[in-house]
Amino acid sequence: MKRTYLDYAATTYIDPKVLKKMKPYLADKFGNPSSLHAAGREARFAIEQARIDVAKVLGCEGKEIIFTGSGTESCNLAVFGIANFYKDKGNHIIISKIEHPAVLEAAKKLENQGFEVSYLNVDANGLVDINELKEALKKDTILVSIIYANNEIGTIQPIAEISEIVKNFRQKSGAVSLFHTDACQAAGALDLDVKKLGVDLMTLNGSKIYGPKGVGCLYISKGVNLEPVIVGGGQESGLRGGTENAALIVGFAEALKMADKIKISESKRLAGLRDYLIKNILKITRSRLNGHPEKRLSNNINVSIKGVEGEALALMLDKYRICASTGSACSSRKLAPSHVLLAIGITPELAHSSLRLTLGRKTTKKEINYVLKVLPEVVEKLREISSIKI
Amino acid sequence: MKRTYLDYAATTYIDPKVLKKMKPYLADKFGNPSSLHAAGREARFAIEQARIDVAKVLGCEGKEIIFTGSGTESCNLAVFGIANFYKDKGNHIIISKIEHPAVLEAAKKLENQGFEVSYLNVDANGLVDINELKEALKKDTILVSIIYANNEIGTIQPIAEISEIVKNFRQKSGAVSLFHTDACQAAGALDLDVKKLGVDLMTLNGSKIYGPKGVGCLYISKGVNLEPVIVGGGQESGLRGGTENAALIVGFAEALKMADKIKISESKRLAGLRDYLIKNILKITRSRLNGHPEKRLSNNINVSIKGVEGEALALMLDKYRICASTGSACSSRKLAPSHVLLAIGITPELAHSSLRLTLGRKTTKKEINYVLKVLPEVVEKLREISSIKI
Repeated sequence: MKRTYLDYAATTYIDPKVLKKMKPYLADKFGNPSSLHAAGREARFAIEQARIDVAKVLGCEGKEIIFTGSGTESCNLAVFGIANFYKDKGNHIIISKIEHPAVLEAAKKLENQGFEVSYLNVDANGLVDINELKEALKKDTILVSIIYANNEIGTIQPIAEISEIVKNFRQKSGAVSLFHTDACQAAGALDLDVKKLGVDLMTLNGSKIYGPKGVGCLYISKGVNLEPVIVGGGQESGLRGGTENAALIVGFAEALKMADKIKISESKRLAGLRDYLIKNILKITRSRLNGHPEKRLSNNINVSIKGVEGEALALMLDKYRICASTGSACSSRKLAPSHVLLAIGITPELAHSSLRLTLGRKTTKKEINYVLKVLPEVVEKLREISSIKI
Repeated sequence: MKRTYLDYAATTYIDPKVLKKMKPYLADKFGNPSSLHAAGREARFAIEQARIDVAKVLGCEGKEIIFTGSGTESCNLAVFGIANFYKDKGNHIIISKIEHPAVLEAAKKLENQGFEVSYLNVDANGLVDINELKEALKKDTILVSIIYANNEIGTIQPIAEISEIVKNFRQKSGAVSLFHTDACQAAGALDLDVKKLGVDLMTLNGSKIYGPKGVGCLYISKGVNLEPVIVGGGQESGLRGGTENAALIVGFAEALKMADKIKISESKRLAGLRDYLIKNILKITRSRLNGHPEKRLSNNINVSIKGVEGEALALMLDKYRICASTGSACSSRKLAPSHVLLAIGITPELAHSSLRLTLGRKTTKKEINYVLKVLPEVVEKLREISSIKI
């Protein structure tokens, strides 16, 4: 029986066209991009072309793009980088309560070091409270970091509106108040034009856009400075030490170009499948949708089903060769309920009853129908066991 | 004309057998290792097997191995990780003057933050001054970091002897004084048994051992604690956030196993070629060997040739399709003379006249003879131009 992979938000496969572009750099074109000889230059050339390609998608200049080893590293570089560079100008950071751990844990670490962190509440649909943001901004604010589209519940924030508020405050107050968005989940689905979005920093990575794992990028608007997190040979304009990885960088750029090119048609297709799936899952009694009903990623379904443990549900689905998740992959091995689900105000019990299904390029109506056949049966079985327990 | 690649210390190609092992994880087996479902588990299983394989080569336990995104990141994790975890127990760090920038720049950053750093001198052959080490150790010393085999001049340090000194001091004084070695260049050439070496932490990476770029590992002896550098989803026992990269990790483990298996025979073969090359290069007038005449990596040749600019020499060799380097790839785009060559006491002028040739698995006697034919001609030409200038 074929596997039904519905965990595209955890990670995607590498598109064969992307892998094909990477292959020369995994084989003959293996030179160190910092070497001056021909073998180094061909790798350097590929990286600089990739940088231009990425910049084109983002509507920025190549020199505003830094390649890193992951989305997590890019988020860390944004948060630690800004905090450590501008600490003399202020020690206040604002993030939302539903950030990915890459931002959340970085902010917590800074809090332990003496920075002040404001954690913005979100409403029941996962939208950041704009008034709270306005009130939180102060002279000491050096960074605001808000996730573009949430990895667990798919809620899309009004990034351009938030940028506007942050920038107006900056101009008025003279505060540093830079704005970073983690766009890892948004890439391939939403507009990534940094000028339209108005962001100062933006994180993307390869493993969510049918590119390779192990590569991310950080857009850093001209004039914005950062302290590096990883230091060494001065690569990536001194912002990220370590031999540059031509194969992964070329793959990332190719994946981003491709994802951006097909994003409108693919989003439309996936939204149709998503809505069909949501409508039918919600026929299960005592189930509810988590996240915004409209402002959500076209591939995201997150539901809570009362009387069922999410983990048991995912493991049962796995027996039917359906790959699903209880929340983010990062937190799937932890026992604590999802911080995102708690932030939208659902109980810890209901948070433990959540299931995330995320669709992707290979997802078909047939697969969705298969899930809709299996899921209610599995829920019923688990509820039976659970009622016996009680 | 075929390319003559003599820059294996900058980076190696990926061995085809290694790439073959990686391929399933670049294709079908793409799951997120933190996902609980089958696609996640198969990636997790591969990573844990790789961890065991790496541990076996190092003679340690799997849980003492942490995978990272590069050798630079591993070195940073060792230096920053120890410094930040043990800062309440002491603020003194000892490194040698010939560390790779991954350690050197990390130590400098800590120095700027208020840590005290002792930079040990090396002798004319690049060996660390053991007496200076003994004198430098003090109650406040939390970390000693010394490169196993230098990336520029190939000098091999007596790591077991240094460990002994550091450990004896630790036992006597009660100081934290942990010992890290950067073994990126040593891997595949020297013994990596951490018990015999007596190290507390050791860095390795993929890109120097015919494995992929973008992956490194850090051996962390049981009982030693670290502050993570990159935080996020709690991967790698909370020491390195970011989706684990099964493809690169599997490739790294396979490369390490293979490199370790053939290290004795291959080192012998390369040492023969190296000595032949050195002997004949030194026939060029006013040339000298940099680094230790015996205690040096079997693949490393580093010479200074008076009256010739190293960079011009490397670029001329490039025209003959010979890939060589002036020093490390990391520093090849910088104008400052090599800190390693200055540390062994040669003049800035002579440091600028250096050429590094590093041999590898595909290096043949025929290639060496080709270099020996081209190099003296090129040197003569450059000296002519240079004498005209004067």
